Amino acid sequence: MQPGKFITLEGIDGAGKSTHLVWLENYLMSKGITTVTTREPGGTPLGEQLRALLLDQRQTMHAETEVLLMFAARREHLDKVILPTLDKGEWVISDRFTDASFAYQGGGRGVALRKLEELERWVQGSFQPDLTLYFDVSVELGKQRVQSIKAADRFEQEQSAFFQRVRKAYLQRVRQFPERIRLIDAGRPLAEVTASLEAIMSEILSERTQ
Amino acid sequence: MQPGKFITLEGIDGAGKSTHLVWLENYLMSKGITTVTTREPGGTPLGEQLRALLLDQRQTMHAETEVLLMFAARREHLDKVILPTLDKGEWVISDRFTDASFAYQGGGRGVALRKLEELERWVQGSFQPDLTLYFDVSVELGKQRVQSIKAADRFEQEQSAFFQRVRKAYLQRVRQFPERIRLIDAGRPLAEVTASLEAIMSEILSERTQ
Repeated sequence: MQPGKFITLEGIDGAGKSTHLVWLENYLMSKGITTVTTREPGGTPLGEQLRALLLDQRQTMHAETEVLLMFAARREHLDKVILPTLDKGEWVISDRFTDASFAYQGGGRGVALRKLEELERWVQGSFQPDLTLYFDVSVELGKQRVQSIKAADRFEQEQSAFFQRVRKAYLQRVRQFPERIRLIDAGRPLAEVTASLEAIMSEILSERTQ
Repeated sequence: MQPGKFITLEGIDGAGKSTHLVWLENYLMSKGITTVTTREPGGTPLGEQLRALLLDQRQTMHAETEVLLMFAARREHLDKVILPTLDKGEWVISDRFTDASFAYQGGGRGVALRKLEELERWVQGSFQPDLTLYFDVSVELGKQRVQSIKAADRFEQEQSAFFQRVRKAYLQRVRQFPERIRLIDAGRPLAEVTASLEAIMSEILSERTQ
């Protein structure tokens, strides 16, 4: 049996990840691929409790505490959901994964790259997503799209400068891992973004059947 | 101003840490030393929420998740309580600290020593307690003393073999850090244990005034 593939979706809020995630699930289903959809932080009962702590606006914590909690939730997520699902031959689609730690805690909060890399290795060894879809959108557009939907959580309430740093860190990840991370310009109309996404997925699936 | 000293108390449940902690607070107060008493996991609002997750009997988690949560709570504890208190010249007495991670998650759960040392360095750098009092008691006696008091938490419900490994790991820490960790035989009558504790503290205070 072929192991499943691990696809992660990344981007700042308002990049349209949720919409594209649903499209991706349906697309893979239409190709006969069973997927499990999950998210970070979260994805397990304990992980969702940690997510609640991490997003709670009233919570204050040191940036490194935030990093450790993200990786604690991730360790559990790998153990309970991601690795067992891939082992069964099913695909996992996760709304955010380790690139988000580099973007938000690294770029956004200023935690040293080296410290993030150490924890990444501690938790994941050499395990990485098979494909990461980074939906790139300007901070202004992302903000416009999000404001209308719901009250801001602890991350969403940050100022524009924070999200500029997050986006910059994401773009740096794209340059650093061009094989794994595909940038999709998510500032365009939905139909165009979906077309780009479909082109990438079609390429991935053709590699798979070769 | 002289920075405060950081004293940690270690031992399995039933070793009498709580009783000796109160004695220690009073003793230091009688010497004119201001102390802040705290505990791990916990010691901060976020840390206490993590403690509740960690001790909840219904909770299941990977051993490495447990380690990461312990160190997340510790990072916060250092930032919000331990380091600022020491900087003010006050002393900190903590009911458990990093030696407990080596004993419980290392010895008890089998997490590799190397991985614990990596996280210790990640979180603490070279920071260590000035003095660690390890109250040594046999697993049988510890168990007898605890059973009468309260319902068992997620750690206390473990079997004797678990606590044997925890104790063994504590004893290994004592051998590894003879300068910092003092072993006190806590299986003796309370008056004798207190006498040993007083002798050690008197020695520590005389070093201080030299």
